[in-house]
Amino acid sequence: MTVLLETARTALLAAAVPAKAEPVPLETCWRRVMAEAVVADMDFPPFDRSPLDGYALVAAEVEAASFEQPVWLKVVENLPAGRVAVQAIGRGLAARIMTGAPVPAGATGVVRLEDVAAEGGQVAIYHGAGCGDNICVRGEEIAAGERVILPGTVINAGVMGLLALLGKDRPLVYQRPRAAIFATGGEVRPVAEPLPPGAIRNSNSYMLAGQVLEAGGEPVHYSIAPDSTAEIAARLAAAAECDLVVTTGGVSVGDYDLMADAYRAAGITILFERVSIKPGMPVLAGVKDGRLYLGLSGNPAAAAIAFEQLVRPVIVKMSGRSNWARPRARARLTSPFAKQTGAPRFLWARCTPGEEGLYVQPLSFQGNGMLKSAAAANALIAIPAHSPPLPAGAEVEVLLLTGV
Amino acid sequence: MTVLLETARTALLAAAVPAKAEPVPLETCWRRVMAEAVVADMDFPPFDRSPLDGYALVAAEVEAASFEQPVWLKVVENLPAGRVAVQAIGRGLAARIMTGAPVPAGATGVVRLEDVAAEGGQVAIYHGAGCGDNICVRGEEIAAGERVILPGTVINAGVMGLLALLGKDRPLVYQRPRAAIFATGGEVRPVAEPLPPGAIRNSNSYMLAGQVLEAGGEPVHYSIAPDSTAEIAARLAAAAECDLVVTTGGVSVGDYDLMADAYRAAGITILFERVSIKPGMPVLAGVKDGRLYLGLSGNPAAAAIAFEQLVRPVIVKMSGRSNWARPRARARLTSPFAKQTGAPRFLWARCTPGEEGLYVQPLSFQGNGMLKSAAAANALIAIPAHSPPLPAGAEVEVLLLTGV
Repeated sequence: MTVLLETARTALLAAAVPAKAEPVPLETCWRRVMAEAVVADMDFPPFDRSPLDGYALVAAEVEAASFEQPVWLKVVENLPAGRVAVQAIGRGLAARIMTGAPVPAGATGVVRLEDVAAEGGQVAIYHGAGCGDNICVRGEEIAAGERVILPGTVINAGVMGLLALLGKDRPLVYQRPRAAIFATGGEVRPVAEPLPPGAIRNSNSYMLAGQVLEAGGEPVHYSIAPDSTAEIAARLAAAAECDLVVTTGGVSVGDYDLMADAYRAAGITILFERVSIKPGMPVLAGVKDGRLYLGLSGNPAAAAIAFEQLVRPVIVKMSGRSNWARPRARARLTSPFAKQTGAPRFLWARCTPGEEGLYVQPLSFQGNGMLKSAAAANALIAIPAHSPPLPAGAEVEVLLLTGV
Repeated sequence: MTVLLETARTALLAAAVPAKAEPVPLETCWRRVMAEAVVADMDFPPFDRSPLDGYALVAAEVEAASFEQPVWLKVVENLPAGRVAVQAIGRGLAARIMTGAPVPAGATGVVRLEDVAAEGGQVAIYHGAGCGDNICVRGEEIAAGERVILPGTVINAGVMGLLALLGKDRPLVYQRPRAAIFATGGEVRPVAEPLPPGAIRNSNSYMLAGQVLEAGGEPVHYSIAPDSTAEIAARLAAAAECDLVVTTGGVSVGDYDLMADAYRAAGITILFERVSIKPGMPVLAGVKDGRLYLGLSGNPAAAAIAFEQLVRPVIVKMSGRSNWARPRARARLTSPFAKQTGAPRFLWARCTPGEEGLYVQPLSFQGNGMLKSAAAANALIAIPAHSPPLPAGAEVEVLLLTGV
């Protein structure tokens, strides 16, 4: 049974549940996903504060001050950042105030150090100030009670700063979904071993591990399974300690494509076996005890695209993020793409901004050489099913692969 | 002395040297930067291989085969992936071949399983094949001797797959530059401690740590330094165990801005103290024993932009990457930006693709509330020095903050 791409993705997303939450030290939370909302328990700034070094005063008194007619005030206090004023400011008075210090009671404006001259206990104000000038008002950034950070937020540098500002030294984040990965096939050899004639190295497991990491998951490698239904089934059973299981190989229709038999032997219910997508058609999806099993092709091109279109959304959802979709844009092809297909087709590509918007170059190795293309790509061209041949200059949809 | 942004960046990049290289297990190399070129020591594919399940045969023999006039061949061997053929294929012969298996000597084409019928030791070919059909030729992806991966390459999923393909189980990567981070200021409190009146939490150190991580570095936190030249100098000396030192606070011109004195006390040569950039003007750059010291403002907006424009390029270069520049694009402002400035100005923004190319929305909190904007931004608007006020719809340059 070949299912449509959207149908397959909807079925998998319905079966995917976010991982459990755990508190982590603030230092280690970069790229994690928030599992709680953070509500401000106070205003920020927590007090009226000066954004610069100067003198806090009653603004109305110095409105007309000028270099020719300065206003002289008595300096009653010196306020570095962190010190709370002891004295209120009234008429004729001023307090020297440093960047970040709380504005004293009674003061309605701050005049910059550059616009004054201090002498003894007095200060001459040479420049007028309006009410509220150079005062950052309590709560102007964040008001107490505001939901500042929402669950599902990916923690970037700005969010790390916000968490610190809000006093969250152990934010609650989603656990990274652990994805078991293994390859099947008698011809597949571990990377560090010598390569006998006819054999190939296990490149897919590492490519998939990189894709798991990029999606926000944690790859867990299992050893290569030989061409034996019982052995593959045993490997599937062992991998059930992870949150989902991703395999490569054994999903075509040949004599050694044993994955479907292994699913049945392991008691995994098969959801679908083929998806209308090129490359990447053979995808054996199954579920057991709420855990998803995704058997991808042994062909790297097919495995990579099927992962991108079907497994990545699952891991993104499991990692707690609300939006699995890649950013989409329109771009002009810089070279023709002549192939036609009945299924949606995805091409590795380089997208670059130009004079007239975005341009996109399909990378030359789309077949067995896809690893070179995947390594160099920053976008995927998405060609809908039944598209005609596309000339250079044709506008196409691209999926922008940020974060790779 | 206020220096131009380009001048400041050039001086810092000249002083930054890439970190040392180290071999790491392939499993752990994602997002690391290659410190060696990887040259293919063999062809890939290493042999002519079948991309599908079928029968390998002499193509010229079956050119005219059809359902009505099948060509019968004797099946001499069964070739799963990984098995090297014992028999050569000559006239009248065929070998059953599975996806990924080496094509036997003498065979010049492969006919798909769907286009044949097997019976006893014979197979009827119903569909003609041309010479070379369904054979992936040895070396068609990668030729022996090709420099497949270059130093400076950031390891993404595709590169991980390539490394595995090429047998690199311990690729040589650059060490992540270790960036010491500490804040100064008597008003700054650790995140987990209660906040007395007038004090603020140490949000900048965590924001900067996130920026270090995003740039490919490794942040190392040191405790907050009080307003004491000797204590700050001691902290600077301790931080010299890292590859560079980034601080926040103490770089304005107030009574408690002690960083320049601390540099002198610690024997750090000052390169410049102010950069023409808004926000972010106060940047105290120094060097000692080939190690860069970067003193940023205590204001989060200023520190974040100065980091982005001056410290990030340094860390990117130290991490071994060749290109520190953010991708640039033209975008249309969705709201006016009226402020004028003599210095280049940078605004946190959201950039989105639209019907007519990219649109960009400056985020509302650009001042003291910048953390909310930095958290939400996916781009920076770069406004050149001496720009006029910009109406909505004006075209501006944006720096795309990928990977955040």
